[in-house]
Amino acid sequence: MMTLEETGRRAREAEPVIRVLSTEEKNRVLHKAADNLRKYSEKILSANALDMENGRAKGMSEGLLDRLYLTQDRVESMAQGLEALEKLEDPVGEVTGMKKRPNGLLIGQKRVPLGVVGIIYEARPNVTADAFGLCFKTGNVVILKGGSDAIHSNQAIVEALQTSLEEEGLPKSALTLIGDTSRETTQAFMKMNRYVDVLIPRGGAGLIRTVVENSTIPVIETGTGNCHIYVDESADLQMATDIILNAKTQRVGVCNACESLVIHEKVKDRLLPGLARALKEKHVEIRADEQALPLMEGAVPATEEDWGKEYLDYILSVKTVSDISEAIAHINRYNTKHSEAIITENYANAQRFLEEIDAAAVYVNASTRFTDGYEFGYGAEIGISTQKLHARGPMGLLALTTTKYIIYGNGQIRN
Amino acid sequence: MMTLEETGRRAREAEPVIRVLSTEEKNRVLHKAADNLRKYSEKILSANALDMENGRAKGMSEGLLDRLYLTQDRVESMAQGLEALEKLEDPVGEVTGMKKRPNGLLIGQKRVPLGVVGIIYEARPNVTADAFGLCFKTGNVVILKGGSDAIHSNQAIVEALQTSLEEEGLPKSALTLIGDTSRETTQAFMKMNRYVDVLIPRGGAGLIRTVVENSTIPVIETGTGNCHIYVDESADLQMATDIILNAKTQRVGVCNACESLVIHEKVKDRLLPGLARALKEKHVEIRADEQALPLMEGAVPATEEDWGKEYLDYILSVKTVSDISEAIAHINRYNTKHSEAIITENYANAQRFLEEIDAAAVYVNASTRFTDGYEFGYGAEIGISTQKLHARGPMGLLALTTTKYIIYGNGQIRN
Repeated sequence: MMTLEETGRRAREAEPVIRVLSTEEKNRVLHKAADNLRKYSEKILSANALDMENGRAKGMSEGLLDRLYLTQDRVESMAQGLEALEKLEDPVGEVTGMKKRPNGLLIGQKRVPLGVVGIIYEARPNVTADAFGLCFKTGNVVILKGGSDAIHSNQAIVEALQTSLEEEGLPKSALTLIGDTSRETTQAFMKMNRYVDVLIPRGGAGLIRTVVENSTIPVIETGTGNCHIYVDESADLQMATDIILNAKTQRVGVCNACESLVIHEKVKDRLLPGLARALKEKHVEIRADEQALPLMEGAVPATEEDWGKEYLDYILSVKTVSDISEAIAHINRYNTKHSEAIITENYANAQRFLEEIDAAAVYVNASTRFTDGYEFGYGAEIGISTQKLHARGPMGLLALTTTKYIIYGNGQIRN
Repeated sequence: MMTLEETGRRAREAEPVIRVLSTEEKNRVLHKAADNLRKYSEKILSANALDMENGRAKGMSEGLLDRLYLTQDRVESMAQGLEALEKLEDPVGEVTGMKKRPNGLLIGQKRVPLGVVGIIYEARPNVTADAFGLCFKTGNVVILKGGSDAIHSNQAIVEALQTSLEEEGLPKSALTLIGDTSRETTQAFMKMNRYVDVLIPRGGAGLIRTVVENSTIPVIETGTGNCHIYVDESADLQMATDIILNAKTQRVGVCNACESLVIHEKVKDRLLPGLARALKEKHVEIRADEQALPLMEGAVPATEEDWGKEYLDYILSVKTVSDISEAIAHINRYNTKHSEAIITENYANAQRFLEEIDAAAVYVNASTRFTDGYEFGYGAEIGISTQKLHARGPMGLLALTTTKYIIYGNGQIRN
């Protein structure tokens, strides 16, 4: 097994080679990578069977086992994911804003890969192929640190992907999986500024917090979403009901699902009783404040703790407010800066909500579930950034690039 | 004195107020701030006299004392700096890329302030007014942590600036100077993710490293520059000489000054003897490799350590290479990703250097000294980013903003 230092050094050595590949060359590798996933699928599935066996033996939950489980179909969909990347536009190489300065210097910004990208993720083996594809399409070298539960699956997938690099005469260190999944190695990886340009954690809130707190490498923080829907005084209540049901129940374990309803007191009597029945049909538990509680059958009282909670479950908190100012203040206080929506027919309130809410995505009259790279038209997604630097909201290929200034002179010196 | 926790909480409370100010309102505050610096100048100068006295007593170097020293003229130029910001375009509020998705959602990106910006800097009191002005013009709240050597000057300047906030009916916590300059407080400040969105260190390499290593808040890394000039086989040697002299000696203590000359072996005989004489006139010490040494009068042998060194002094290292590939590999290995230049008359080599060098700014036939927000036409500069996330190279007002997605719907739910 390679040492971490060696992994870093080799990735850095591969970086100037990968950075300057043409789009055609990169697409050829992605195409081969898809083929190789199919070709190696038996090997991948038997490695996965071993992970599943170990998972069951250590008593992993059914939910986690399902996320770990690979089938022929799931391998096929990983392969198709790589093929889909071939068709996406390569952002690398574009030069923007080239301008002539008074002294004759021509200055512009050229889009370039980030360099070496580190990805730390949990027990979903499909992330392995996906993260490689997105990083490679944008000319980046990638070092993956997956969870120990998926180690055999990840190794088999990485082997298939590396084969395609080698078949195209490229260094296989353009993709490395860190074999040692110990805590110490993960900690050391997060401090390898010398070799790694950017670190992206993909997983639950605990993983993300660990990376943010320990990494000295710049991090793109993805994910947790305590998303609210505010139903304004003037809302179309049928629309409100439809959107709340969709945002809460279409898929519950995701970061853009709605966790809290904020309701204007003037419409609570008309909206809440019917909404409570509809939510009950979907088996959603309601945690309501004092004013909403009597209007929602089966609801239990909310506590202060509920306002700040990302349930990722069939639970919805309900907070009553007396006007839009209170709604905005409540949301800005408790949200995780992910996705927030207002349901309103009032023009000024719609504009004010868009202006004053501090979040990656702010909606008028639509479900928060749309915060997603595919829904936003990027054709891919490396995650949803909830920080403010570099990228905010769904991140497509562009988020895996940076720029450098290029300057054409003819002998200029500074006075 | 406010506790750090209270400073953070108050800054966060001021943030929604400052974030939504109009450009006119912000300009009015900047105008008043300039006036108040002038009005309070006596107070500022006597506070500065106290810092100078303390500095002399503890044996501060002349260089540092000069950076600390304020005069009526220097206060005036701080005031003029704030007035100049009034005239710059406010990037906040622009919406770009608004597009209609197939389902009818209108999705665009709106430019917004970062939120609460923390700035950690050393003993230059002019940074106090400058950082406030840049952050405030872009709708940000700012928490400053200056060095203990300038604490009285900084306090007096901040008081003048805060007065202008209060005169306009705004919370003075839109600007706070952390009064406690102890190491423990600084460490705690770097971990206040709850209140601070972004941390920008401004100062020497040591300060920047400390912040990068200890902050859990996203950092914009600024600054150190081990900048190279590569003189290609086909270079105009007079142009090369002029540019090297300018980049090395026009100002030596700055991050975009040239620290190392990389020279093609075929032109070394023609360039180096004359260049050595010209450098000697400017009192530049030369540290040359084996091939260059006999050609440069007064040169001393370079050691391996020299290649990675940012001298910030009248010293230049000289490295001989046999072709452009070796030059690019050498520079990519030892540079700090700041500013790099090639001097060449060869089209292919110019393009290749621009493509393959990994740095914030890559030049053909110009001095590296141009890497600067003013020279690039931004009218202001908060620093020069040498990291790849968010902003790379000279950062103007735009780097102090982020975006949020705004989405106009009419009842869309996700299938």
